[in-house]
Amino acid sequence: MHHIDVSIEKDIFDANNRLAEKNHAKLAEAGIRAFDLLGAIGSGKTSLVELLVPLLKERGLNTGAIAGDVYGDDDFQRIVATGAPAVNANTGKECHLDAHLVQHAIDHLPLDEIDILFIENVGNMVCPTDFALGAEKRIVVVSTTEGDDVANKHPMMFREGTIAVINKVDLAEYVDCDVERLETDIHRYNPEMPVFRTNMKTGEGMESLLDEILR
Amino acid sequence: MHHIDVSIEKDIFDANNRLAEKNHAKLAEAGIRAFDLLGAIGSGKTSLVELLVPLLKERGLNTGAIAGDVYGDDDFQRIVATGAPAVNANTGKECHLDAHLVQHAIDHLPLDEIDILFIENVGNMVCPTDFALGAEKRIVVVSTTEGDDVANKHPMMFREGTIAVINKVDLAEYVDCDVERLETDIHRYNPEMPVFRTNMKTGEGMESLLDEILR
Ligand SMILES: Nc1nc2c(ncn2[C@@H]2O[C@H](COP(=O)(O)OP(=O)(O)OP(=O)(O)O)[C@@H](O)[C@H]2O)c(=O)[nH]1
Ligand SMILES: Nc1nc2c(ncn2[C@@H]2O[C@H](COP(=O)(O)OP(=O)(O)OP(=O)(O)O)[C@@H](O)[C@H]2O)c(=O)[nH]1
Ligand SMILES: [Mg+2]
Ligand SMILES: [Mg+2]
Ligand SMILES: [Zn+2]
Ligand SMILES: [Zn+2]
Repeated sequence: MHHIDVSIEKDIFDANNRLAEKNHAKLAEAGIRAFDLLGAIGSGKTSLVELLVPLLKERGLNTGAIAGDVYGDDDFQRIVATGAPAVNANTGKECHLDAHLVQHAIDHLPLDEIDILFIENVGNMVCPTDFALGAEKRIVVVSTTEGDDVANKHPMMFREGTIAVINKVDLAEYVDCDVERLETDIHRYNPEMPVFRTNMKTGEGMESLLDEILR
Repeated sequence: MHHIDVSIEKDIFDANNRLAEKNHAKLAEAGIRAFDLLGAIGSGKTSLVELLVPLLKERGLNTGAIAGDVYGDDDFQRIVATGAPAVNANTGKECHLDAHLVQHAIDHLPLDEIDILFIENVGNMVCPTDFALGAEKRIVVVSTTEGDDVANKHPMMFREGTIAVINKVDLAEYVDCDVERLETDIHRYNPEMPVFRTNMKTGEGMESLLDEILR
């Protein structure tokens, strides 16, 4: 986000936080637990939803999703194909969702049919951290193909996140990604952060990740 | 970038454009051709610089670089290791470089020793398009590991870009990336855009890309 003027910015963040609290209250009232999905482009956010819909179903829980993208409905269509109710939230030119966009999306979801809501943000490791949406946890998904310096370059993502996922562990060797370095960097910025290593092609690591999400 | 108010925004863009023109004039006066490197996190922007420094040297041209990142000096250190003069430009909280940051970076470069300047932006497919920096061409680097929907989701990147690079072609098969679809999407948004397929682990495709950059 472009920092124009500190007082204007503070107003924007305050207004956003108030709306985020409203979203949170509305979801809580409907008995829904909501989780943000943050991370770089292509890190595996939509794949995570695709994999967790059936795993949640096995646990007797119904998933819903908000698919946040600048443009298009690629992610929305993939989520709809899982059978989960979803809303497409296009930001137009913005590089992140905000609580207002999410408020509108919530209005279009069948809240009675949802237990767990995933809010997939635009692929971006910077601005989404500044905008609370109303979720109870923030899941940060990075992939080994982004390089093992990706955590070091984005301290705020991890300071403000709740759970970290290092995805595409199957491709680490092809990009010379040192997964230990990635995990060390994450813990330098957020010592308590649980970190999961996943391969979303095979589903490896998804059950333990889900345990932590629902904890 | 968060769109706060259309008139404030217009002022910011106008001020940025004026500075970008100054940067361009200063570089031209020093006989330097400058190129923006844009793309998602980990798409291969720094790898491109690492590979082109020696190829440019073979053609009798000296490279310089500005390494733009939110935080840290990972890219800066990699570029310095190639022997090319470089400046580290940290944005702090911004998700993109602007002409003002680049102006300061230019002041710290040994302009006499540079023929070709690469300006590596923050990994982001949205906001960098709005901020001209003073370069003559914009090279947009995506990688197959981001998924074959990445071009469709980011029309402006390709409308405003000059040359497209589809990198990590060696990994396309592992992420089920349809490179043809990617190229079709790019040409839907920008029919004239030259598209190069590269493997920056082996250097495949880099000589023809360099021909196009210098054209
Ligand atoms: N090999 C491999 N491919 C994966 C893995 N996880 C995801 N992919 C592939 O990586 C690409 C991107 O995954 P997505 O789930 O679309 O990523 P995303 O974070 O939703 O992407 P955006 O919404 O565009 O930011 C797709 O082609 C996936 O099939 C993994 O663990 N291993
Ligand atoms: N297998 C394979 N790996 C590549 C290729 N190009 C780059 N990589 C690896 O991908 C990772 C990211 O590459 P970088 O050049 O750092 O990407 P970047 O765009 O500069 O990343 P940021 O500056 O963090 O946005 C590194 O581990 C590279 O070694 C390629 O064509 N094939
Ligand atoms: Mg997605
Ligand atoms: Mg880089
Ligand atoms: Zn932004
Ligand atoms: Zn921005």
